[in-house]
Amino acid sequence: MSNSTGRLFRVTTFGESHGPALGCVIDGCPAGLSLDLDAVQADLDRRRPGQSALTTPRSEADRVEVLSGLFEGRTTGAPLCLIVRNADADASAYARVSEVYRPGHADWTWTEKYGHRDWRGGGRSSARETVARVAAAAVARQFLSLEAGIEVVAWVEQVAEVTAAMDEGTVTRALVDAHPVRCPDPDAAGRMAAQIEAAKHAGDTLGGVVACVARGVPLGYGEPVFDKLQADLAHACMSLPACKGFEIGSGFAGTRLRGSAHNDPLYFDAEAGRVRATKNDAGGVLGGISNGERLVMRCAFKPVSTHFQPQQTVTRAGESHTLTNSGRHDPCVLPRAAPLVEAAVLLTLADHALRLRAARPFGRERP
Amino acid sequence: MSNSTGRLFRVTTFGESHGPALGCVIDGCPAGLSLDLDAVQADLDRRRPGQSALTTPRSEADRVEVLSGLFEGRTTGAPLCLIVRNADADASAYARVSEVYRPGHADWTWTEKYGHRDWRGGGRSSARETVARVAAAAVARQFLSLEAGIEVVAWVEQVAEVTAAMDEGTVTRALVDAHPVRCPDPDAAGRMAAQIEAAKHAGDTLGGVVACVARGVPLGYGEPVFDKLQADLAHACMSLPACKGFEIGSGFAGTRLRGSAHNDPLYFDAEAGRVRATKNDAGGVLGGISNGERLVMRCAFKPVSTHFQPQQTVTRAGESHTLTNSGRHDPCVLPRAAPLVEAAVLLTLADHALRLRAARPFGRERP
Amino acid sequence: MSNSTGRLFRVTTFGESHGPALGCVIDGCPAGLSLDLDAVQADLDRRRPGQSALTTPRSEADRVEVLSGLFEGRTTGAPLCLIVRNADADASAYARVSEVYRPGHADWTWTEKYGHRDWRGGGRSSARETVARVAAAAVARQFLSLEAGIEVVAWVEQVAEVTAAMDEGTVTRALVDAHPVRCPDPDAAGRMAAQIEAAKHAGDTLGGVVACVARGVPLGYGEPVFDKLQADLAHACMSLPACKGFEIGSGFAGTRLRGSAHNDPLYFDAEAGRVRATKNDAGGVLGGISNGERLVMRCAFKPVSTHFQPQQTVTRAGESHTLTNSGRHDPCVLPRAAPLVEAAVLLTLADHALRLRAARPFGRERP
Amino acid sequence: MSNSTGRLFRVTTFGESHGPALGCVIDGCPAGLSLDLDAVQADLDRRRPGQSALTTPRSEADRVEVLSGLFEGRTTGAPLCLIVRNADADASAYARVSEVYRPGHADWTWTEKYGHRDWRGGGRSSARETVARVAAAAVARQFLSLEAGIEVVAWVEQVAEVTAAMDEGTVTRALVDAHPVRCPDPDAAGRMAAQIEAAKHAGDTLGGVVACVARGVPLGYGEPVFDKLQADLAHACMSLPACKGFEIGSGFAGTRLRGSAHNDPLYFDAEAGRVRATKNDAGGVLGGISNGERLVMRCAFKPVSTHFQPQQTVTRAGESHTLTNSGRHDPCVLPRAAPLVEAAVLLTLADHALRLRAARPFGRERP
Repeated sequence: MSNSTGRLFRVTTFGESHGPALGCVIDGCPAGLSLDLDAVQADLDRRRPGQSALTTPRSEADRVEVLSGLFEGRTTGAPLCLIVRNADADASAYARVSEVYRPGHADWTWTEKYGHRDWRGGGRSSARETVARVAAAAVARQFLSLEAGIEVVAWVEQVAEVTAAMDEGTVTRALVDAHPVRCPDPDAAGRMAAQIEAAKHAGDTLGGVVACVARGVPLGYGEPVFDKLQADLAHACMSLPACKGFEIGSGFAGTRLRGSAHNDPLYFDAEAGRVRATKNDAGGVLGGISNGERLVMRCAFKPVSTHFQPQQTVTRAGESHTLTNSGRHDPCVLPRAAPLVEAAVLLTLADHALRLRAARPFGRERP
Repeated sequence: MSNSTGRLFRVTTFGESHGPALGCVIDGCPAGLSLDLDAVQADLDRRRPGQSALTTPRSEADRVEVLSGLFEGRTTGAPLCLIVRNADADASAYARVSEVYRPGHADWTWTEKYGHRDWRGGGRSSARETVARVAAAAVARQFLSLEAGIEVVAWVEQVAEVTAAMDEGTVTRALVDAHPVRCPDPDAAGRMAAQIEAAKHAGDTLGGVVACVARGVPLGYGEPVFDKLQADLAHACMSLPACKGFEIGSGFAGTRLRGSAHNDPLYFDAEAGRVRATKNDAGGVLGGISNGERLVMRCAFKPVSTHFQPQQTVTRAGESHTLTNSGRHDPCVLPRAAPLVEAAVLLTLADHALRLRAARPFGRERP
Repeated sequence: MSNSTGRLFRVTTFGESHGPALGCVIDGCPAGLSLDLDAVQADLDRRRPGQSALTTPRSEADRVEVLSGLFEGRTTGAPLCLIVRNADADASAYARVSEVYRPGHADWTWTEKYGHRDWRGGGRSSARETVARVAAAAVARQFLSLEAGIEVVAWVEQVAEVTAAMDEGTVTRALVDAHPVRCPDPDAAGRMAAQIEAAKHAGDTLGGVVACVARGVPLGYGEPVFDKLQADLAHACMSLPACKGFEIGSGFAGTRLRGSAHNDPLYFDAEAGRVRATKNDAGGVLGGISNGERLVMRCAFKPVSTHFQPQQTVTRAGESHTLTNSGRHDPCVLPRAAPLVEAAVLLTLADHALRLRAARPFGRERP
Repeated sequence: MSNSTGRLFRVTTFGESHGPALGCVIDGCPAGLSLDLDAVQADLDRRRPGQSALTTPRSEADRVEVLSGLFEGRTTGAPLCLIVRNADADASAYARVSEVYRPGHADWTWTEKYGHRDWRGGGRSSARETVARVAAAAVARQFLSLEAGIEVVAWVEQVAEVTAAMDEGTVTRALVDAHPVRCPDPDAAGRMAAQIEAAKHAGDTLGGVVACVARGVPLGYGEPVFDKLQADLAHACMSLPACKGFEIGSGFAGTRLRGSAHNDPLYFDAEAGRVRATKNDAGGVLGGISNGERLVMRCAFKPVSTHFQPQQTVTRAGESHTLTNSGRHDPCVLPRAAPLVEAAVLLTLADHALRLRAARPFGRERP
């Protein structure tokens, strides 16, 4: 099992969908950070189910509790443990599928690997697990803001066949949250919502793409050769439930460009006092190290596995079974996936912020 | 710096493009493995420059030397150190650009982060660094074959606008190596080679996509929640030079499917004595754990940054500079990227093979 | 901060003396273990304050709660989070010394390093932190018993000038717990208790030595070269509060022997079907790897830093201050240190039990 | 296997006694360090065999070679690989004991654990392995000197029954090296040498104690709770061959003091502008964090296992065997152990120096 991530801003999560609580331990957050718990709660609220008709009706207050690491409102250098209790944890809907392997879910693989599984709501494999990541990332967000003035915004760029165009320089959280679908392009947002409604009525589900920008990341995050920044970002994003693809900068589309068109020319920005690029097909990284330009990423999410049409599967005993789901489920995970991508990116950046501290060179030469 | 990867099959690499040698230390390879050094050399030869007119004319013998960890032909449980000496390391072509930040390269970010850089051939940021990964992965390949009968094959699926179709069930290394472009579809391979030749004559470069399949991976590789198999595979692949995107199974294209079409139905294969899926949009993972089906991945590689057309940049001192490259360079990295993707996948699988050993449950219940 | 230990049986702890709760997350415990929570509670009860007149009167129920990782009484492969709430957390006694650096404590170093400290009861530096280690170790104990039939027993061997002799082959937990001082030699135990009482009446404190044996450890725990078993055991024990020394086997006394007397001769034990040593000056390890004989260790604990005689110190502002402690404190930590040494040893062995699984060699040759 | 140590100043070693080479990879040494290779060589020379009649006559030049990580004399942030070739590697003396388990050695445990062992000179378990640690530590020494002005000196404090007294404030490397026994007390040194000569003539071997001081360590090295500075120092020292015990500050002797005598009183040193202790029974750590006073440690080394008297053992096949050693061996490891303890301490401090960089608090309050 691997329930920890990060080397210096190290986060460990625990908890199951229908157990007593989920939570995280953050080890390595510098001391002296005045933690705004309302802001942590606000980040949790964005991920919370039941926010609109587009998402699952499961109703969880998801109130954060701090068990350790804060004193007089500030971090002490000791590990922060944040938990969120499960309130609306009704497992009865799952009892009837406790012996069935639901296609697209971890039921099969978890049971065969570990021999024993908590089938209530997906147990540890439930997307509810991400509440702990979001809590930890809310702390990372405040740390990164203080450390380097970084801000991270993710939004829904695509749902099924509907795609939005958005300027990653100007997108804000307010724009993202203006529509429940979390697409800051109002026109596309409306069409996405319509698609989601239609799928929901058809008992089906949709996938899509979340885009994410990190602004204010200074030059120097990321470490050659294995922990290139894009590698660690990919790791964090691809560990999110339902995420099947990741790209940075020009990504897959850039493979069709010629080198002479792809390379980002450089110039010296006298006002900023630093080198800059005239465009950003690199997506903010060169040689695995952030270059001070915006980090721009995209994550592919498959359509939600729990749809309501009959599907062929087997029971744990190996017998054929036709499964027709019921229960409370998102028809499209995208609106709630945007905060998750932010969380993945924030945790990665927080770790590299601390690594950069440790990597400070001696006698940096300046021309 | 982060020059190690893997938790249990742990690989550390070192070396620069124009230093005395590059190498790797493999810590954790089980004892008693009869290591076939000719096979290691064969894997290095596939990655070697100068194999065809399509790749860089730099000529390196890249002979592997074993400094430790082998006794009477078998591993002892002690760390294996493999090195490859640099022979044809002519740095003179780089002296003239030692103060210039080449667009698309790590020159800028490395120098600003570390204050000091080995400019000879890109130093540690050279793609030549991957020779050490390939050496380590050649050991991983032999370990995985013995441990679980796994085989990994990667091939060039796309160069610029040319795309090949290939059945991941039947593709073999022999088919891949039949054409120097490393595309097993002969028709597409020919068109890819023509495109590469054309770009070369135009002083330009191309990008593309490498596909990869791992066959024989047993159910159980990958660990929820952070080290899902796809997350670790993405990490390994995205740390390769020039890699800008990663996807598994249906990937980005799958985001346009509905859930009812995407989910892979399950059945019990009486002959195999195990559960299987009737199709493989999942790409071989469910809930971050391999399900015994084929792992199928794709990696996007940007066009090579060193093209031969004039480009705008700056010197280290911040002065504007028009750079026109010369020297020995691949016009398209794809043919040599296929072995690198194999290496990334092999190292990840070797690590999870050992993790699975440690995760063996007690009292596995069987129906 | 480093609040995690172990590579495969990985334990992270959190919590402060006077915060809401202390706890641990265990990541890596194999699935399928039927966890006996009463036995976990029994281990916590042994460490609990207020067990006799010899220990601090602070009264804590220290009831364990499981937040995650158990389903139907068995581990699932998901992380176990165990917490213990703080009930009798009266910080008022500490308010008057909140600006004073108590000699022998972490007040000075924590405050100077982290800039900010939870002064209530020592915060994270309180020995109360060990409740989380003991909870985790109670799980490790059950795992090790099932994995390899291992049992670990620690006892008080020395208090101040009183030393007990004990046969590490026959000592049991029942013998240890028969006297509140946790020395299984009744005569020595009585004299130790008298010394502790005398020190208590004098407002002073005592130190001593805890001995520990692990029986049933199979050959093969421990990994050359850095994580030799004795190195990891030393790390675990020396991280306990107040521990100033560690030795294994012949330890410091063995430095006065000649090699011809120190080496343990070997023979083949036909009945056991394995090689054995005729004596055990090695203490159960050779070359950093357990040899199947008993592990025998000793740990030195300094006298408790909180005594009741006036002592010279400074305030945070740097002013001279004469401190005279009051409050609830152990006059001698030894009776409660024995369970802590057991915990340190258990956690180390659990980690190496899993590492041994991963290190299984191929084609082991047998004569 | 665990051939790496340190989290941020991370060192991986490789190599066997009679293989082609031994070496280390240092990952994390900050860029811009001007590395004095003569000083590295000087540190290797101190550990080298054949320095006096007191040590093994094996003759190795032990010349350091740099394979990577240096450019124009300075570190680049890339991993440093240093190797030392084996020259005088005559394995013939070992062939006759290749099937014999030498008492006190790793022959038995390595063979049983890994199934296969390099019996030439002890293979990976040879004390010759430490040449790589000393090379890495020589880099750490230069880093620590530049980072914080730290100096580390170890010396032989005891051989068998002869004990030296030494002031850890004034001991220097020159004093230590003035006598080949590496005891800075000339009178004791002479008596130690006489004992070693006598043991050598008797075909026997001796053990002893190495003391070590680190001066100039700033307040703040070490991390609660598991990686307390003394825990990491113990780990490093106890991983040295033949080391059976470790203590810091008052150690085992301090267990006999009362708390009122043991606590080190504090005062404000106006000249230094910081809090200090009037004495140093703590040995330089409080709560696992260095307090700015000297670190003082002692390590117990058992008598050398290879003596020349007949001893009872078994062969790999389980047959009884009377072993009488021949070959080149140290009668007493202490003179060569002093540089090894320095190496262990230096590597630990280098790691914590970087960890302290990462742990810098926000808004440190000062009175």
